[in-house]
Amino acid sequence: MKTLNTTLSNTLLIDILQQVRALIGQGKVANYIPALAEVPNHHLAMAVCTVEGEIFSAGDAYERFSIQSISKVLGLTLAMTRYREDEIWCRVGKEPSGLPFNSLVQLEMEKGIPRNPFINAGAIIITDMLQFRFSTPKQRMLEFVRSLTGQTDISYDNQVAKSEMEHASRNAAIAYLMKSFGNFKSDVLAVLETYFHYCSLSMNCVELAQCFNYLANNGRLLNNDQIITPIQARQINALMMTCGMYDGSGEFAFRIGIPGKSGVGGGIICVVPNAFTVAVWSPELNKSGNSLSGCAALELLSQRIGRSVF
Amino acid sequence: MKTLNTTLSNTLLIDILQQVRALIGQGKVANYIPALAEVPNHHLAMAVCTVEGEIFSAGDAYERFSIQSISKVLGLTLAMTRYREDEIWCRVGKEPSGLPFNSLVQLEMEKGIPRNPFINAGAIIITDMLQFRFSTPKQRMLEFVRSLTGQTDISYDNQVAKSEMEHASRNAAIAYLMKSFGNFKSDVLAVLETYFHYCSLSMNCVELAQCFNYLANNGRLLNNDQIITPIQARQINALMMTCGMYDGSGEFAFRIGIPGKSGVGGGIICVVPNAFTVAVWSPELNKSGNSLSGCAALELLSQRIGRSVF
Amino acid sequence: MKTLNTTLSNTLLIDILQQVRALIGQGKVANYIPALAEVPNHHLAMAVCTVEGEIFSAGDAYERFSIQSISKVLGLTLAMTRYREDEIWCRVGKEPSGLPFNSLVQLEMEKGIPRNPFINAGAIIITDMLQFRFSTPKQRMLEFVRSLTGQTDISYDNQVAKSEMEHASRNAAIAYLMKSFGNFKSDVLAVLETYFHYCSLSMNCVELAQCFNYLANNGRLLNNDQIITPIQARQINALMMTCGMYDGSGEFAFRIGIPGKSGVGGGIICVVPNAFTVAVWSPELNKSGNSLSGCAALELLSQRIGRSVF
Amino acid sequence: MKTLNTTLSNTLLIDILQQVRALIGQGKVANYIPALAEVPNHHLAMAVCTVEGEIFSAGDAYERFSIQSISKVLGLTLAMTRYREDEIWCRVGKEPSGLPFNSLVQLEMEKGIPRNPFINAGAIIITDMLQFRFSTPKQRMLEFVRSLTGQTDISYDNQVAKSEMEHASRNAAIAYLMKSFGNFKSDVLAVLETYFHYCSLSMNCVELAQCFNYLANNGRLLNNDQIITPIQARQINALMMTCGMYDGSGEFAFRIGIPGKSGVGGGIICVVPNAFTVAVWSPELNKSGNSLSGCAALELLSQRIGRSVF
Repeated sequence: MKTLNTTLSNTLLIDILQQVRALIGQGKVANYIPALAEVPNHHLAMAVCTVEGEIFSAGDAYERFSIQSISKVLGLTLAMTRYREDEIWCRVGKEPSGLPFNSLVQLEMEKGIPRNPFINAGAIIITDMLQFRFSTPKQRMLEFVRSLTGQTDISYDNQVAKSEMEHASRNAAIAYLMKSFGNFKSDVLAVLETYFHYCSLSMNCVELAQCFNYLANNGRLLNNDQIITPIQARQINALMMTCGMYDGSGEFAFRIGIPGKSGVGGGIICVVPNAFTVAVWSPELNKSGNSLSGCAALELLSQRIGRSVF
Repeated sequence: MKTLNTTLSNTLLIDILQQVRALIGQGKVANYIPALAEVPNHHLAMAVCTVEGEIFSAGDAYERFSIQSISKVLGLTLAMTRYREDEIWCRVGKEPSGLPFNSLVQLEMEKGIPRNPFINAGAIIITDMLQFRFSTPKQRMLEFVRSLTGQTDISYDNQVAKSEMEHASRNAAIAYLMKSFGNFKSDVLAVLETYFHYCSLSMNCVELAQCFNYLANNGRLLNNDQIITPIQARQINALMMTCGMYDGSGEFAFRIGIPGKSGVGGGIICVVPNAFTVAVWSPELNKSGNSLSGCAALELLSQRIGRSVF
Repeated sequence: MKTLNTTLSNTLLIDILQQVRALIGQGKVANYIPALAEVPNHHLAMAVCTVEGEIFSAGDAYERFSIQSISKVLGLTLAMTRYREDEIWCRVGKEPSGLPFNSLVQLEMEKGIPRNPFINAGAIIITDMLQFRFSTPKQRMLEFVRSLTGQTDISYDNQVAKSEMEHASRNAAIAYLMKSFGNFKSDVLAVLETYFHYCSLSMNCVELAQCFNYLANNGRLLNNDQIITPIQARQINALMMTCGMYDGSGEFAFRIGIPGKSGVGGGIICVVPNAFTVAVWSPELNKSGNSLSGCAALELLSQRIGRSVF
Repeated sequence: MKTLNTTLSNTLLIDILQQVRALIGQGKVANYIPALAEVPNHHLAMAVCTVEGEIFSAGDAYERFSIQSISKVLGLTLAMTRYREDEIWCRVGKEPSGLPFNSLVQLEMEKGIPRNPFINAGAIIITDMLQFRFSTPKQRMLEFVRSLTGQTDISYDNQVAKSEMEHASRNAAIAYLMKSFGNFKSDVLAVLETYFHYCSLSMNCVELAQCFNYLANNGRLLNNDQIITPIQARQINALMMTCGMYDGSGEFAFRIGIPGKSGVGGGIICVVPNAFTVAVWSPELNKSGNSLSGCAALELLSQRIGRSVF
């Protein structure tokens, strides 16, 4: 915990990516929608943003991709700015699920209350809350992300959103099941449309590292705007640690030891509290649905600079 | 993260216990065996041991109680000293279970490989490994705990162990189920007998804080003996964070933000890496099976001295 | 098996209803939609139709009610007239579910293939098949039921259908889950609309006994029209025996010993092969969701005339 | 239902076996214990015993084999002679399980009450009841079977029983799980030892058809001894219909339409009430664990003589 930033450098990141590149071919690009299946598997990117605002990067760090479930952290953050703590946590839990990210078994047994906001069911509930509160929830999210990053051209990949909507059956089942338990307020298909747009946010690794820097910085942006309270930032980090990597969260904590959230697009964002955020991208996924080379890169980084929170 | 130890003091702990004492009566003392059910609910204790060896304590911090599942951390540590990483983790996983601590559902679906070493099934597997490696596994554990604490009179509560053995059916079912999948080597009843003895270890909060100090101190004892490697210490901390509090691990991370392991005797041990360990004891449990007042005391401590890892 | 029809009479049925009337008050009228919840619990009716066309009846046997899941037998019969055996049974199974009638757990584990055509999921698949084959599936069902009974004024209770559609979330979840596995062809909401209309069919006990007489008569109507083959009639009877009474099918076979299908409206239709059909109606349900007094009346009938198939 | 016995003949059975012999090779001999795995797959046998005592047979009808789960019907019958109805059915249910024969999932959810007496858990409960009531339960069963068949040399295959006991883990898990819920009275291992002996009963098809003739004959033996009441015989037939063929009971009722009970040794016993019993044997099993060629032979028989109960 002592060697803060001393070894962070572009060279370090380049070196790490070079080591993990050999793993490409061992994972599997997400193929449930064509728009994701067509992304070439050779992409590899890494970017760091320190709480002082310094940026380090390597590989395709300026190429945008579909951030997918990483957007679940943004949805939760936005909900935290508009709802009281008890309003959120009576509708979604805080526990790891112990199951694949889109299973309905648990949701049925637990009467429509999703285990946590980082599985699909939980993120759909959060989206339902945003849909209920905002007149233009898609526009509101864009503004939020643009304000977090300072990048005004970040937007949705409408082709991805459309493709997701066409393959929405599983998530529609999840949403209707929650509705059947009374844990859903808006129109199911309208909420899914918003949800898939959030998933389709197109960002690059540098933008991701900047975007989530508030989680490393006690809820503050680099420009000192306080987005959420320091306690809320810690709460989100805790949720990422226990629930952020689907059913591979325990393994990720064991190997890498910092809070993170992954997406099926192959991106992962991680937070080293009071130090920096780091984003990686490599489209091939491991069996838990997390970027295979991305996890390896983060493990190397954690080892090199000794920044596990444990 | 900056204010290390400055505010740790006996007074602080006394003050915290005073605040949480009001909660006594809201939880439920474990009653599945008489020996636990008879423990008076009014006990309340807290002790801290810093990585420099300084001790702070309050309440019944020198009264011993049944540490129960806290012993699972000791079992894993001992196994790590005698087995290679791959030998352990092919027989037990690293993921939170998302289910009560003694459910068989998941164990059957996942073909006899328990989710993690901190649920009963996982700890029984670890005990099976110790039983296989040591000729006198009960004696070996006693020696280990005595060496960690320097307290040579720590021992098993044989009445508790006997009572557990008489109510062993659920754990026998778990063990036989794993055996049916080929994930069990020794005699089931012999392993259970050892396992229940581990659970019956009788220690007080000061001893617990001392005992687990190696987890805060990169695997080293206060006398500088290296028990496990720094990486192994971090791995155990990570497992405690994601799996240490049964199906309340996410909530505990969210509210308190440090790795911990609880027992149904009402004890909890927590680790603030590179800083200190803290043990609490209050027999009444919350719905997840963790000490109700104990969790509250740890939350207050975490808030007062700002030592969440997040 | 020897005493065929000798004891069937209006007096017998009247006597049976008198005995079971005492049970009214011990069950619970279905209350998930207002239109069903408002049906008075005191209704009690029974009607028999022999394969020779003789009718016996008692109580409110000419009062219509919502037949609900009894319509699942009609849907399957209609599908059998338009699809080959293999086309049907690759999309729905033939096994009892061992679970409540609208659970999603099993459906997810078994990859969107419902256990049998008499649970909701299975009947929705059958409706999807009818929706795909018929241009006006609601009209087609009406014509079918009218031809089976000779009653040209049988129709849907549109208020019930509308109310069901407003509480469709659980069934929508079921349908979307099957769609996510590729086992669904038409539009989900359109199929549900048809499905709920089938459920809302309004018939009385005499009409029900007449309507299903083809199942007692080797697939033939009383006017000798062959609706389905003798083998198909036996197959439907077999499915009713093993799956017709939700998770109370085993108990029903044990106590009463003839094939039957119940609905949450409190109706039950039973078949004594080569002898007669019998319909009962009493709105209060037992814990398995079958008419409480209806089951009791059928048990008495089975005892009195010795017509268990076993 | 009219053509009773007219077509039953040795020639018919020989003809049927000839037709189904072609299926040998498509199933799989049970291999969980060596004693069963070593049985040659070419065995094929069929025997009928009418309620008048006439015997027809074909193939290896006089070669004995391990009857395995067919013994569950004998255990239940014996229990019915010594326990009141309510004493039995408070400890075991009457519903199909919808799951493989030795799953623990349901048993845990349903608090240690097995679904029915024909899955392992249920038969183990029945054995626990017999163990509790009889001083020599193994000897008592032998006497019972010998009295039912008149064959005084029927006995256990001790090699099979021993082999089962050595692979008892799964069933031990089941028994201990029930014990943990308070639904078990005797010593687990002693009960399992008795249970495996029952499973190891060695009988041939002619003996099986004779043995179970009381189920076709209203509870009476051919010598007119009343073993159980006519109602109890019907109850057992009903349970065989809904639960007798594991998770293939629905398919069996659909295709064959008579009550039956199978064993993993490849035997099946079926009952045509008031007419005859029929036993088949062919060691290869289908996916549900029922004799593949045996089912085919029974289907042919059912078609040829038109004796489905439906």
